[in-house]
Amino acid sequence: MKHGAAGMARVLTLAVSLVMSFLLAPAQAADLAITGATLIDGTGSAPVRDAVVVIDDGRISAAGPRTDVRIPQNAEVIDATGRYLIPGLMDANLHLYLNRDLETLIKYEGRYHEIIIEAAQIALKTGLTTVFDTWGPRAPLVRARDAINAGEVPGARIYLAGNIIGYGGIFSTDFNAPAAQFVSRAFARRLDEMWEQGTGQDLLWAEPEKVRAAVREYTSLDVDFLKYGASGHALHEMRFISFSPRVQRIIIEEGHRAGLIVQAHTSTTESLDLAIEAGVDILTHCDVSGADTVLSDETIAKIAERGIPCSVIPVTQRRLEAMNAVDSDHWLPRYTANMKENQRRMIAAGVTLLVSTDAGITHPVLASEATGIGAVRVDPRTTLGEGHFNALVGLEELGMDPMAVLQAATRNIAVAYHKEQELGTIEPGKRADLVILDHDPLEDARHYRSIATVIKDGEVVAIEGLPVAPLISSQEVE
Amino acid sequence: MKHGAAGMARVLTLAVSLVMSFLLAPAQAADLAITGATLIDGTGSAPVRDAVVVIDDGRISAAGPRTDVRIPQNAEVIDATGRYLIPGLMDANLHLYLNRDLETLIKYEGRYHEIIIEAAQIALKTGLTTVFDTWGPRAPLVRARDAINAGEVPGARIYLAGNIIGYGGIFSTDFNAPAAQFVSRAFARRLDEMWEQGTGQDLLWAEPEKVRAAVREYTSLDVDFLKYGASGHALHEMRFISFSPRVQRIIIEEGHRAGLIVQAHTSTTESLDLAIEAGVDILTHCDVSGADTVLSDETIAKIAERGIPCSVIPVTQRRLEAMNAVDSDHWLPRYTANMKENQRRMIAAGVTLLVSTDAGITHPVLASEATGIGAVRVDPRTTLGEGHFNALVGLEELGMDPMAVLQAATRNIAVAYHKEQELGTIEPGKRADLVILDHDPLEDARHYRSIATVIKDGEVVAIEGLPVAPLISSQEVE
Amino acid sequence: MKHGAAGMARVLTLAVSLVMSFLLAPAQAADLAITGATLIDGTGSAPVRDAVVVIDDGRISAAGPRTDVRIPQNAEVIDATGRYLIPGLMDANLHLYLNRDLETLIKYEGRYHEIIIEAAQIALKTGLTTVFDTWGPRAPLVRARDAINAGEVPGARIYLAGNIIGYGGIFSTDFNAPAAQFVSRAFARRLDEMWEQGTGQDLLWAEPEKVRAAVREYTSLDVDFLKYGASGHALHEMRFISFSPRVQRIIIEEGHRAGLIVQAHTSTTESLDLAIEAGVDILTHCDVSGADTVLSDETIAKIAERGIPCSVIPVTQRRLEAMNAVDSDHWLPRYTANMKENQRRMIAAGVTLLVSTDAGITHPVLASEATGIGAVRVDPRTTLGEGHFNALVGLEELGMDPMAVLQAATRNIAVAYHKEQELGTIEPGKRADLVILDHDPLEDARHYRSIATVIKDGEVVAIEGLPVAPLISSQEVE
Amino acid sequence: MKHGAAGMARVLTLAVSLVMSFLLAPAQAADLAITGATLIDGTGSAPVRDAVVVIDDGRISAAGPRTDVRIPQNAEVIDATGRYLIPGLMDANLHLYLNRDLETLIKYEGRYHEIIIEAAQIALKTGLTTVFDTWGPRAPLVRARDAINAGEVPGARIYLAGNIIGYGGIFSTDFNAPAAQFVSRAFARRLDEMWEQGTGQDLLWAEPEKVRAAVREYTSLDVDFLKYGASGHALHEMRFISFSPRVQRIIIEEGHRAGLIVQAHTSTTESLDLAIEAGVDILTHCDVSGADTVLSDETIAKIAERGIPCSVIPVTQRRLEAMNAVDSDHWLPRYTANMKENQRRMIAAGVTLLVSTDAGITHPVLASEATGIGAVRVDPRTTLGEGHFNALVGLEELGMDPMAVLQAATRNIAVAYHKEQELGTIEPGKRADLVILDHDPLEDARHYRSIATVIKDGEVVAIEGLPVAPLISSQEVE
Repeated sequence: MKHGAAGMARVLTLAVSLVMSFLLAPAQAADLAITGATLIDGTGSAPVRDAVVVIDDGRISAAGPRTDVRIPQNAEVIDATGRYLIPGLMDANLHLYLNRDLETLIKYEGRYHEIIIEAAQIALKTGLTTVFDTWGPRAPLVRARDAINAGEVPGARIYLAGNIIGYGGIFSTDFNAPAAQFVSRAFARRLDEMWEQGTGQDLLWAEPEKVRAAVREYTSLDVDFLKYGASGHALHEMRFISFSPRVQRIIIEEGHRAGLIVQAHTSTTESLDLAIEAGVDILTHCDVSGADTVLSDETIAKIAERGIPCSVIPVTQRRLEAMNAVDSDHWLPRYTANMKENQRRMIAAGVTLLVSTDAGITHPVLASEATGIGAVRVDPRTTLGEGHFNALVGLEELGMDPMAVLQAATRNIAVAYHKEQELGTIEPGKRADLVILDHDPLEDARHYRSIATVIKDGEVVAIEGLPVAPLISSQEVE
Repeated sequence: MKHGAAGMARVLTLAVSLVMSFLLAPAQAADLAITGATLIDGTGSAPVRDAVVVIDDGRISAAGPRTDVRIPQNAEVIDATGRYLIPGLMDANLHLYLNRDLETLIKYEGRYHEIIIEAAQIALKTGLTTVFDTWGPRAPLVRARDAINAGEVPGARIYLAGNIIGYGGIFSTDFNAPAAQFVSRAFARRLDEMWEQGTGQDLLWAEPEKVRAAVREYTSLDVDFLKYGASGHALHEMRFISFSPRVQRIIIEEGHRAGLIVQAHTSTTESLDLAIEAGVDILTHCDVSGADTVLSDETIAKIAERGIPCSVIPVTQRRLEAMNAVDSDHWLPRYTANMKENQRRMIAAGVTLLVSTDAGITHPVLASEATGIGAVRVDPRTTLGEGHFNALVGLEELGMDPMAVLQAATRNIAVAYHKEQELGTIEPGKRADLVILDHDPLEDARHYRSIATVIKDGEVVAIEGLPVAPLISSQEVE
Repeated sequence: MKHGAAGMARVLTLAVSLVMSFLLAPAQAADLAITGATLIDGTGSAPVRDAVVVIDDGRISAAGPRTDVRIPQNAEVIDATGRYLIPGLMDANLHLYLNRDLETLIKYEGRYHEIIIEAAQIALKTGLTTVFDTWGPRAPLVRARDAINAGEVPGARIYLAGNIIGYGGIFSTDFNAPAAQFVSRAFARRLDEMWEQGTGQDLLWAEPEKVRAAVREYTSLDVDFLKYGASGHALHEMRFISFSPRVQRIIIEEGHRAGLIVQAHTSTTESLDLAIEAGVDILTHCDVSGADTVLSDETIAKIAERGIPCSVIPVTQRRLEAMNAVDSDHWLPRYTANMKENQRRMIAAGVTLLVSTDAGITHPVLASEATGIGAVRVDPRTTLGEGHFNALVGLEELGMDPMAVLQAATRNIAVAYHKEQELGTIEPGKRADLVILDHDPLEDARHYRSIATVIKDGEVVAIEGLPVAPLISSQEVE
Repeated sequence: MKHGAAGMARVLTLAVSLVMSFLLAPAQAADLAITGATLIDGTGSAPVRDAVVVIDDGRISAAGPRTDVRIPQNAEVIDATGRYLIPGLMDANLHLYLNRDLETLIKYEGRYHEIIIEAAQIALKTGLTTVFDTWGPRAPLVRARDAINAGEVPGARIYLAGNIIGYGGIFSTDFNAPAAQFVSRAFARRLDEMWEQGTGQDLLWAEPEKVRAAVREYTSLDVDFLKYGASGHALHEMRFISFSPRVQRIIIEEGHRAGLIVQAHTSTTESLDLAIEAGVDILTHCDVSGADTVLSDETIAKIAERGIPCSVIPVTQRRLEAMNAVDSDHWLPRYTANMKENQRRMIAAGVTLLVSTDAGITHPVLASEATGIGAVRVDPRTTLGEGHFNALVGLEELGMDPMAVLQAATRNIAVAYHKEQELGTIEPGKRADLVILDHDPLEDARHYRSIATVIKDGEVVAIEGLPVAPLISSQEVE
């Protein structure tokens, strides 16, 4: 009976998908033109008032002042007069599946890809046309990514790393070890394996060539880029340094051999320095230096000189104050204030910062039950659909130039991930990922929230209907 | 989509039910006759060789030696020559839903009735035509009971108590409090309420009339009998006595007012005495007196004199030895040996013992992962489908008369629960619940396992197909 | 070397004791007269202005208006003109050794009697000439009591119960079970035995006659009265009722057989009712009914009718408000407010309340490290030297007559413990335990703090030097 | 009173010390000659039968065949005919204060130096004339060392490192964090500071120059050598690498600047490699590579080539088998077997191994209460007085040459710690630390236990009276 029902559910899912893919089907050969908006193309060029952008078969064919651009006769025209046109936003570091609570893990086992799609739709709805998922269950992420890319379901474009090399699974000490005793070992093992994929904590014991073999095996799976843990991610019981320099170099080598960008998670000053020296392409959390210290000028200067882009999580001053109001003795406000100070100094030193959030779908019921620091809901950073808006405000607060703020969430992320040929700016030949805003984002970063229209791959997204079939975000709080 | 799938699942369930109800449909007016078996009718009369039992419309119309009983012409005849015919077995105390692990609780929320049906089918398959469920989620139990009674699904006949008055829900200290921190409070509250139904630990703080009001409210719900905790059920951090004498009398009064049998859980000598004095109808676990003492002769004599039937769990000697082999320092072997000694002395004193198991579906994966004393799988007692067979052997080991052993699992349970007009013996007018055994159970209690045929309400049960749609018992161990 | 040092320490202790006993030695035959004070003799009679109290050989020989009392010629005279003379205060329920923390338990093993003496000196210094220690390590309590009674050291007069019958030792679930894993089992066993003395949790499993034997054995030890737990004392994982009615009657019987007053700890409505019905002499915590309910009028009326004195802990309104300010969601403020409400209604119903505190020496370092509700230091109740002053104010707040407030801490306690021939009032023949106050306690209960002089057994106590050799109370907070 | 007793104790301690120093006072100018023994001088030279060793003023003045050595006329002669004369044994890595249990920590606060002296006496009694204490409370260690060096008390010569740089104190996650909640924060802080001395876990967050400052400060304290943690020391929640290469180099630099030998604790393959590359003088636990892997040949070859001596803990085969018998599923037997295999291969590769034990005084009561793997008492390795004997047997089992086995516990340790001018062999000019054995240690390593006489600094030690005033080792098991 169960199997029968499950079978029917699959049939039904397929049917829904077919209907959706019909509804979402491309408007065929019809061109699209957006007219009248102020164009901020993400290249750093000055905004162009009364601009026209023409889209042909999902890509931008022309962009410029109305006087310079011809609107094709058959083009559908979107009049955006008085509005602002920017490249589709990006998040350099989020986690579409972030739901480590047992209720979600157990209830939706086998359906994590649906939650990932839900997350990708929340992202898309809030202007994120492309997201870089830097930790999550690889197979469900691939399934969701492919469904979106195939046009079966709407959603932000996903690039994924899968597991963080050197981290254990959900029930390991890296994440939720205490919960392990409340599930069967079979379940814990099944899930741990889904996350680890051969790149778990065992590698931390291994000599270099064993690590090389494991990473090579992992690169043969379907992943879009690599991420390794230069440090652990807990603040207490920290693995200050996870991999030796020679092992870090091997991981990077293997990533590059497979044509992949390699990024490192760092959360201590020395793991940061080692990752820099090992030659990573992107530093994630380079702004983290613990609760009691900030980075030295030397370290910041080194990042700037080598031009390594950094994923940072710029929290708003308002949030920082809210945390202090709740518990100023807690280490987290100090830790966060140090991050903000590091960011400020990196901006001054010319480091390329990328907007990052660590966001996933915040479970409404669990959020309602949070206490202490965890209950601070002012300008949340890890809440999908909120985090990136707050991060943009956070950067503005630090004195970053408004145009640079925009680039931190668009062009610079594309460049960092080697996607600048396709994404990140509004230029002919690029994928037509665009956001139309009601208000000028260069005037006030809060205006990024004023989304009128999202266009992805040249098509207008029906954002009001997203997410289509929410499992998590729609749960009601009693 | 989810709701769509669930809807389809319901449709499918309905379809399966319809097909089943067709397959299981009564053979209409056709009578059934079982011939040639040795009849052990449960009344205590001597076995009758070459007997005939005639069933008409679900009830026994005649039973006796072949020479005395006329077989109706149109009757379908089951030739049971060389076999043994006994009343359908009963379990005075089990828990069809016993799956307190988070994986089952979360994964199957909303489907607990299916697990209960699965359990009732395992029971029926192993000869239990009637079971008394003395603790579980009331609403799903009612749903399962009604589906079975309506002939929608096969299963043992269920009588249910729902919650044990005075016990908290699944996530209370009575059951699995440590797990509460790993689920949302909303989930914990939802489940606790499903179990408690207004009769939780709060009553332990209340003065008499508040308890009366809560119990009266509870009796207005659909339950078949009442059970209250005269003591708590943990061995450590024991509530030695839960309710005062005056409160116990009120609970019993309210049960009787509503026409319900009232039983008490007791696990200490003094809670046992208080329950006796309060006037309960059935004592559950009267054989439990802790790890370090046995009951006094006075207490046993008092139970015998007042004729109060006792649900006991007779474990086999083999199991006791297996437990000692694993960890003879553990309190459990001593505790169990004391139970066995108490049972032995109660038999000698003429106390009416009822076969009881505390059984539910043992999860195969969790069972495979058990360690220590918990890993002892020799003659398990709380495993549905095993426990009652072992209990019958356990009673035999204690020197109980073989006929009395049979009655402990049939007639005496019916009498204790005031169902003797309908159930418990093979006599004209009773419901036709019968089991045909290959071997003589009076010769060796292990022969109760030699089930050839189970008949419930006059119909042959297709036991080889049970359970029909297992959710739990079929899970595979890696 | 160690043994040598310890030996020297013993010699030194002896020497100090000798010196002290000299300093404290009775002024032989010299009488003492206190003149000029307003005498509030504790009998309930109206205050007598300009009174004279004469003391002869440790007892009161005369008391009355100056006009009626002759001052012996050789008498030493204390001029207390303008002051107030009251009977020595009493605490019906405290714990001179309350230091369950591992540092004290380990560091001072073998020296607990010194801590008890320290506590008795803090008590004496704050006007408590007699205290009833209702739970503690029996042998060290006896040693301290005897040293005080022998005049070797100053201190409040101690009457002691030792263990609460039915409670486990320090490392049992009744007290500090989690700490057990951090000490050797030998140490835990040694301490548990020191507290339990054969009357631990094992008795909760036993049938009546076994309890009788254990209690009889316990009464053969040196204790001054008996206390048993009618309920457990934790709020969570409560033993709502510890002993059945018949067992409670046996405990009381055995106490009375040995000539001892028997009191019961109760903390639930039904355990309270059972203790009343069983015939206890004193009810301890009869004001406790949990966080969610108050006592019924019937229960309060029953206590009043039977005239059973009740030890209660009257907290001040100020403390209650301070608790609410810290954490109004916590159960403790509600629990405490219910106690206060129960006390108010008992006063109105004419129940005899006895001032009680549960006090012991609060460790200065641990107190400084407390958090949450535990950090509330406003009007502490369990702090020795503070608790009784606050309790007296608490009673006044509830509208108790000022004379009755005084009697709740003097005469009524003496009567409850059957010591009224010796203690509790200022009447000829009684022991000369007196306190001289600067301000009128009947005007304002806060005036009990205005202690000018404490006289015990007819001798003026050198209160400014107390405690003489503090181990705990003098520890410095960094 | 208390202070008085403590004062007396101090006086008494002084007195005892004076008496002892008299008893232990050097035999002035009297020479000592040991005659007739087979001399195994530790240089690697062949044993000399019927040898004579002459000692003058605490140093060896001559050693060789009887025919070559003149015995001074006034010399006291020890006839050791038929016995074996070896250099005093050494332990390259032990912990004289290893008692992390709360009972010892609390009870003996302020007296840890006495425990250290007790330990040094157990060491001396079992032939260890010199020990290198590589982790412990610095100040008490200094006090004990100085008392021994001043001849106030007997004991093994101590060289000490104090804290392991980068490790937290007793109540940190490196040692006994769960116990912290059972003591006052003041106590925990006091003890943590005693151990950390400014070199705790904070350094793991710091950039290089901050570490340099802290280490420089630490070298200004009284320590004999430095030790830092290249990895953490827990197996689970491991800090695989604690310090980056550049920080490790700084620590070593600062040690060398202060004229100190620097050793590193390593317990993972990569931390080992980093410590080698950083240039440490001694590797501690170079044989540890986790439960699931052994070291590569490359790593072992690197250690051999660079000639870095390694402290290893060679457990006996018998112990390994005992552990497997208790719990072969536990990680510890596998971990230990890997250590043994690494040792075997290092011997083959020519690595200089130093006998090491991690030993301290095993508390008799706690040892008696151990369970599981912890209860294995066969050939214990961390038990002071046992560990080194077992280690010597362990090396022999691995096929090490008997002469090399001796040197692993004598000369090689002296060389590794740069004490070879003073210690390690029986050669003229060296300190006269000698052990006389009844049986030939080169024939069977078990013969190291056959100690007849221990001579330290030229004086015969009264070993039968050691330890003089035991606090820990004498505690009786019930």
